[in-house]
Amino acid sequence: MENIEFADRVKDLRGSAIRESFKALSRPGIISFAGGMPAPETYPAAELARIADDILTNHAVTALQYGITEGYAPLIAQTEARLAKAGIAGNRGDSLIITSGGQQAIELTTKALINEGDGIACEDPSFVGALNAFRSYNARLYPVPMERDGMDVGALERVLAENQRIKFIYTIPTFQNPSGITMSLEKRKRLLDVAARYGVFILEDNPYGELRFAGEDVPAVKSMDRENRVIYVGSYSKTVSPGLRVGFLLARSDLTEKVTVCKQVSDVHSNLMAQMMISAYLDGCDADARIAASARLNGKKCALMRDCMEEYFPGNITRTAPEGGLFLWCDLGGGVDSREFAAKCLEQNVAIVSGAAAMPDTSKITSAFRLNFSMASEENIEKGIKALGEVIKGYGKR
Amino acid sequence: MENIEFADRVKDLRGSAIRESFKALSRPGIISFAGGMPAPETYPAAELARIADDILTNHAVTALQYGITEGYAPLIAQTEARLAKAGIAGNRGDSLIITSGGQQAIELTTKALINEGDGIACEDPSFVGALNAFRSYNARLYPVPMERDGMDVGALERVLAENQRIKFIYTIPTFQNPSGITMSLEKRKRLLDVAARYGVFILEDNPYGELRFAGEDVPAVKSMDRENRVIYVGSYSKTVSPGLRVGFLLARSDLTEKVTVCKQVSDVHSNLMAQMMISAYLDGCDADARIAASARLNGKKCALMRDCMEEYFPGNITRTAPEGGLFLWCDLGGGVDSREFAAKCLEQNVAIVSGAAAMPDTSKITSAFRLNFSMASEENIEKGIKALGEVIKGYGKR
Repeated sequence: MENIEFADRVKDLRGSAIRESFKALSRPGIISFAGGMPAPETYPAAELARIADDILTNHAVTALQYGITEGYAPLIAQTEARLAKAGIAGNRGDSLIITSGGQQAIELTTKALINEGDGIACEDPSFVGALNAFRSYNARLYPVPMERDGMDVGALERVLAENQRIKFIYTIPTFQNPSGITMSLEKRKRLLDVAARYGVFILEDNPYGELRFAGEDVPAVKSMDRENRVIYVGSYSKTVSPGLRVGFLLARSDLTEKVTVCKQVSDVHSNLMAQMMISAYLDGCDADARIAASARLNGKKCALMRDCMEEYFPGNITRTAPEGGLFLWCDLGGGVDSREFAAKCLEQNVAIVSGAAAMPDTSKITSAFRLNFSMASEENIEKGIKALGEVIKGYGKR
Repeated sequence: MENIEFADRVKDLRGSAIRESFKALSRPGIISFAGGMPAPETYPAAELARIADDILTNHAVTALQYGITEGYAPLIAQTEARLAKAGIAGNRGDSLIITSGGQQAIELTTKALINEGDGIACEDPSFVGALNAFRSYNARLYPVPMERDGMDVGALERVLAENQRIKFIYTIPTFQNPSGITMSLEKRKRLLDVAARYGVFILEDNPYGELRFAGEDVPAVKSMDRENRVIYVGSYSKTVSPGLRVGFLLARSDLTEKVTVCKQVSDVHSNLMAQMMISAYLDGCDADARIAASARLNGKKCALMRDCMEEYFPGNITRTAPEGGLFLWCDLGGGVDSREFAAKCLEQNVAIVSGAAAMPDTSKITSAFRLNFSMASEENIEKGIKALGEVIKGYGKR
């Protein structure tokens, strides 16, 4: 049969290098700093086993039958209560729905809002899963440089002034993926001001906010939103389990209603048993203490990774100092193409992600790369960083 | 804040009346013939409880961690084997991926193939979830009338001859939703011929094929596809559980690869535990015997529903005689608007679905309506059909 003519919106869409590298991870002996995976030792397997048994023994028909698109009502209520505790009360006129991971909330919001050619301002670098979701609707991406305290709000304002068709600003203000950077409170306020001035939405993606291991909490942008301008995306992937694929969207109700219709045609509803499992887990398993313990473990691994860099990396390799989340961001400098670097690392059985994946402008070459510090064991962190150091030193010798 | 300007593709998109009526089903005493739900008494709850416990005890990290977008490899292999047993071997150059229900396979195929204004030929009536997925990308729908032995292939050919931009033909050839009609073998062959002649794809949606309770099997269109023209969608929703949200797509590899990238930005991957549960269930729980028993139960309920119609409906109300699946289709005739009829039935605590939801042309008024015979108990089938008969007789008296 003839070649397929794919739709314009997806014809240039490529899979994420991160997801692709995931396939290499089954290679024996590989050390992965590539994925965005929580520490496997923190999964509450025993609790979830007990919960799953209870659900399928006592509430099987509810779990196995179709559910409503908006999500499992008790989980919606619990999620709202958790957000309120974190200062993120939905405004009057906001509502919350459950999605199949934060990724789906981002994709459906894009589907609901973006015509082909509409613009989205995003941090540079940013999360490739979101960037690709935007690209899959032929959105135009307007990169805004990152600074040590979050996106350059002055640059954002210039971008908005010059481009009328920008529909929303995409930001991961807390423990950003990939940089690990947290936006300062002052910048969050300025961000809200600028968005209001230009009449655009803010899509705040906050999957890591509960995983702080150092420093002081900074309020979510949504917590300061007085006019339903912030579309807030959260997730249970990093706090309970990514495999269960449960996230949520909190936004003005006319938007969540439209997103709900889009979700209905996308997957009808999210896996109901997973929603019930997370609901029961939040209710009866001291989840907050477990999440805090998991953040502490991440902090320990992050400190170890940075100590190993001190020991094994040449002095000129910069890196961020995250106070939470799962990632840190290094820069080789010297015009190195980090895609080539990532390939060399893989030869040494260490998987990393080139910063190229995180560039809103895919043609941009970068010497930066992302490291995940949560998944590898402490032993492998030391071994892996030592191996990366050797690869870096090889560059110096050329 | 100002009104939202939604994207053109979704600004007129409305939720499915079926999904909306689902919310009314929590009303006490309601008898529902509205949903597309399997008989709740057929869910393999005890088996799945044992399986879930085993997964979370012995394979927790695999189940709770991120998985690959294509799906859980053992389930892919099992699904391929099951299809092969049913005569649906993937062609050379085909591949299979797991999706979050058949609905997602349909939505992502549309996203990958349809530019705004491209056409899709579909049966009239058809499945509202698919129609809405098509609408959500601003596809133009070209209705093809249904006959007693499936879509009118002559009419289809005229539609294709007159409209150059039709990208694929959407069909549910076996136990169609909503009509319950099965396309004859001869028409399936002609359908393939016509599609080849006009160079369009066929999207074959087959969620009910394994649920035959009468008559002889008719081979899937895909089983006769020699040129990778048929995009085949299947589901475990009607054979294991809809709440788990697991379906699949079998199509030429360049298409499944593009759909996989679209899935990656949509929900990363389908809930992994659900995939593992279904995999274990297919492997060790005599699933085929259970599916056959479930089909027999549906057949018994369908026969009862038809017997009750004989007793309680006026003689002029036509209905189809399905040999499987979950639905039958009735026609009141006489210019009645079945939306009004459905509202009257709901007042009598019986939920049905107006045929209006199933019209590719949303402005079309129809006197037809859909009844699900699998979910209600036998007692409620009799009670509900009797109540519908009373409402119908009320029309006669006006």
